[in-house]
Amino acid sequence: MSTFPRQVRINEEGPREGFQIEGAGIPTARKIELIDKLSTTGLKQIQVASFVNPKRVPGMADAAEVVAGFRRADGVRYTALWLNEQGFRRALATDRLDVRGRLVLCASPAFLMSNQKSTPEENMASHREQMRSCIENDVPVEHGGLQAAFGCNFEGDISTQLMMKGAADVFSIADEFGLKLKTFVLADTMAWANPASVDDKVKAFQDKYPDTEIILHLHNTRGLGMANALAGLQAGVAQFDASIAGLGGCPFAAHRGAAGNLCTEDFAFMCKELGIETGLDLDALIEAAQLAEEIVGHPLPGSVMRGGNLDAFRRAL
Amino acid sequence: MSTFPRQVRINEEGPREGFQIEGAGIPTARKIELIDKLSTTGLKQIQVASFVNPKRVPGMADAAEVVAGFRRADGVRYTALWLNEQGFRRALATDRLDVRGRLVLCASPAFLMSNQKSTPEENMASHREQMRSCIENDVPVEHGGLQAAFGCNFEGDISTQLMMKGAADVFSIADEFGLKLKTFVLADTMAWANPASVDDKVKAFQDKYPDTEIILHLHNTRGLGMANALAGLQAGVAQFDASIAGLGGCPFAAHRGAAGNLCTEDFAFMCKELGIETGLDLDALIEAAQLAEEIVGHPLPGSVMRGGNLDAFRRAL
Repeated sequence: MSTFPRQVRINEEGPREGFQIEGAGIPTARKIELIDKLSTTGLKQIQVASFVNPKRVPGMADAAEVVAGFRRADGVRYTALWLNEQGFRRALATDRLDVRGRLVLCASPAFLMSNQKSTPEENMASHREQMRSCIENDVPVEHGGLQAAFGCNFEGDISTQLMMKGAADVFSIADEFGLKLKTFVLADTMAWANPASVDDKVKAFQDKYPDTEIILHLHNTRGLGMANALAGLQAGVAQFDASIAGLGGCPFAAHRGAAGNLCTEDFAFMCKELGIETGLDLDALIEAAQLAEEIVGHPLPGSVMRGGNLDAFRRAL
Repeated sequence: MSTFPRQVRINEEGPREGFQIEGAGIPTARKIELIDKLSTTGLKQIQVASFVNPKRVPGMADAAEVVAGFRRADGVRYTALWLNEQGFRRALATDRLDVRGRLVLCASPAFLMSNQKSTPEENMASHREQMRSCIENDVPVEHGGLQAAFGCNFEGDISTQLMMKGAADVFSIADEFGLKLKTFVLADTMAWANPASVDDKVKAFQDKYPDTEIILHLHNTRGLGMANALAGLQAGVAQFDASIAGLGGCPFAAHRGAAGNLCTEDFAFMCKELGIETGLDLDALIEAAQLAEEIVGHPLPGSVMRGGNLDAFRRAL
């Protein structure tokens, strides 16, 4: 079996991924309760909200209140997502977030055209404006990435060549602004990845950009999330996005408990069993997952919160 | 990435794994409907029932009626499970099954003691009796295996050494009776496996018994089913047990949709995406999974039946 990284970092995206699809019914106080619980688990980065149009995403209408209400824990970076200048201003205005710029393009021209009615060139122009705005506001930009890096429901499979072209576009904008990208997310936005394509794309990226650390953002829509994560670990990836309890669901799902993002505590469990350090308290993560399920009021996809941490069995023997 | 087997065989266990935990509420005709649907998917082996005590497993009280009712398809082997001489007789009496003997021991002495109040020696004696009975009835025995090969809630982790000791016991009984084991199942009965332990145990077995093909029987109780299957493929395993829609649940699950066996159509999908032939019709498997969910009347864990076959997207582009 391949050599794994000694340590892996998991970035929590559950509050943002989850509450944005759960609708407007969840009380702000309960969202805050989950974030506060997550802050006790050893996570070093928690994405707490997205500042987007509340008419399109009613579950994020209370983003400012959520951000105003949680308790900041030492050593934890609290992030948020936004899609335009207005959202960026709202995030800045909270004065309680670790606001960092992101230079994330989309690997699929067909998705850009279908979803945003823009060409890759227009999309790059819009990102140049965002970079200018970040620089004007002294907001650091050290994170790049590509949506739909593995495939797309509108484009089909994304070849490694097309993915690398998208990555080159990201780095060319970064170069224009003198930005050094420390991390780069390869996002399997629509769950087209498989272990072989993860391996191939990760290695192509590592060969060309050895000084930028890959983050894998995986979805479990077709059941391959954990296998794809394993392929990432085997290729040396040491940073992953994940969602507590698998919060996030998926737009194709017939029932909301179907399959969302890579599940934080299940992935942390796999790392633990493989001897990879995460710095996370698995029992606390399981409690957070159970809390998340109670808050949304329907089953979530996470498994180890039901099956149980093996260390609990080992301790009881 | 490792070389994968060119072809993989998936043995369907859904009707047996699923209906044994669903209780007595499912009409016999609907069980038969699922088996008949599965017969159209390209599967070469379907385990249709278990002949066990109906007081302990009410969902299998109608095993004989189920077996009497399904349509045998050409080229498909229909199997059943039993635990003692009485069950074996009932399976033989149907005269509609491919009755094959199994020489499957348990890797965990603590589980044997807790569950069956017997020592490994007593358990081996009981299996010798079963082998005699098979030989007397001209029932071939070509299949061996180990339950709890990776770990056990009563024993804890099962070391590769202990697993290999259990395997040696199986082969020693086989030798006593002049049986040649063509296949050997390593069953992760209580979901203790991880990708590294799969790799380690598979390779140890392959080294010692190169002429016996490994079958992996994996559970997804802690979310690692597909990652463990990937590790098996990477180590050259080319035969897997699986359950349609992930039927089977798990005794630890708080809700029945939680996490059962490795899911047939999700695993078939992964193989297809990796270029591994299974001989299976993925769209037909997805229909069978949706039928299974309708029959049991609650969500089942399968993902690709909701997320969709990527080839359907590719065809539509």
